[in-house]
Amino acid sequence: MPGPPGEMHAMFEEQVEPRLRELVDSDVTITRNVKTMGMSEGAVDEVMSEFFGQQNPYLGIYSKADGIHLRVAARATDTVAAQSLIQPVEDAIVERLGPYIWGYDEETPEQAIAPVLKERGLTLATMESCTGGLLASTITDVSGSSAYFKGGIVSYTNDLKEASGVDAALIRKHGAVSQQVAEAMAEAVRIRLRADFGIGITGVAGPTGGTPEKPVGTVCIAAGAGEARRVITLSLPGDRIAIRHRSAQAALNLVRGLLS
Amino acid sequence: MPGPPGEMHAMFEEQVEPRLRELVDSDVTITRNVKTMGMSEGAVDEVMSEFFGQQNPYLGIYSKADGIHLRVAARATDTVAAQSLIQPVEDAIVERLGPYIWGYDEETPEQAIAPVLKERGLTLATMESCTGGLLASTITDVSGSSAYFKGGIVSYTNDLKEASGVDAALIRKHGAVSQQVAEAMAEAVRIRLRADFGIGITGVAGPTGGTPEKPVGTVCIAAGAGEARRVITLSLPGDRIAIRHRSAQAALNLVRGLLS
Repeated sequence: MPGPPGEMHAMFEEQVEPRLRELVDSDVTITRNVKTMGMSEGAVDEVMSEFFGQQNPYLGIYSKADGIHLRVAARATDTVAAQSLIQPVEDAIVERLGPYIWGYDEETPEQAIAPVLKERGLTLATMESCTGGLLASTITDVSGSSAYFKGGIVSYTNDLKEASGVDAALIRKHGAVSQQVAEAMAEAVRIRLRADFGIGITGVAGPTGGTPEKPVGTVCIAAGAGEARRVITLSLPGDRIAIRHRSAQAALNLVRGLLS
Repeated sequence: MPGPPGEMHAMFEEQVEPRLRELVDSDVTITRNVKTMGMSEGAVDEVMSEFFGQQNPYLGIYSKADGIHLRVAARATDTVAAQSLIQPVEDAIVERLGPYIWGYDEETPEQAIAPVLKERGLTLATMESCTGGLLASTITDVSGSSAYFKGGIVSYTNDLKEASGVDAALIRKHGAVSQQVAEAMAEAVRIRLRADFGIGITGVAGPTGGTPEKPVGTVCIAAGAGEARRVITLSLPGDRIAIRHRSAQAALNLVRGLLS
């Protein structure tokens, strides 16, 4: 197989794995990944507790940047039999965690919002500080995002926030890391870039810059389309890379919530 | 060991690996990674050809998003002996590829420029389209980057390029993906954000949007500080993610070149 991972993975999955599978056994394993956000790992664990500990179907719980994932795996002689083992567990997840579920299997928040924005002809614009461009970069990871992404401002300084339409008095009064400034950023970029939705992120990604009132991991995120607005303050765990990643994912899920 | 990769890796490297190493042998392996950009893999391979094929020291060549890497590995009874096996190969790499070397071992371009910018009190600003925020995000991955990063504009539409100071006539005449527009983006954002260096990226990340004259992978990158300017056009291989990643890395190496 070729060395570059991009080529090797594709070749392994398409050519090698199916042949190996034929050689070793005739059983089929199916998995279903259900992605939630808004409940803690402990709370999800408790709600689903009776399903843990079985081997087939097996239920696993994983804490990821885009929330808590539940993964159901089942093994049987054919796809239909494996699916019938998974279904009752998946049904229980949907029944108990419905409002917190935002996606399935390999879906990402940036992929989940794409078809909805396209269908409704809506557009997005971003103003971000602590994520430093990661939100815009994540949105534009999706091919075809130019249909709904107008652009973004990485306002790493207060000067640039103000030059981009955020009221300087608001920053002085509440501090750059505040729900008020996140909302002002979302609204300023929405108007300036003539988009339907504006997203604002301001926070402390660390490792420095934390204070007792606003420690590292404090991130304020706002998303709004005129009257329809949401703003949240998160206390995110992890290092700088993880905090930035989780912030971008949470912002996209805020938009997803507004769209649904 | 804990499940989350961030915790597991640290624990493995600090606690598990040293103990395993004591159990299995007393030999030491040392590696040295030399990172180059600007020469093709074939050309680097030819220049270093006499060193390939040996087992100890072993020389490997790798094509990465940030250029061609040469990795020298040697095994001996102690560190000094292993280092003395590596040194002649490293010396030959430096002698033959000197101007193309931009970093060593785990160093990244965004880390390589950080101390130089800080020492000289210089600042950066970015305007990017096809990379969609990835350049700004990569720069701000580095803790302390607020000392030299003023901010960025993700100008995903021509409208936003023009509103940010790029001459509309230039876009009409040369097309949005052109060296002229990349230079205008770098200069416009430099002036607008009052930075010392401006960086502009415009290109076709794909999978759609390519033309016979400007196929997918065509990326124009400009970096400038007033009179000191560089502009390049790259034909990058790979998919959308790889093209965006390579573009951001190449832009940072252009800045590194201007700084040295």
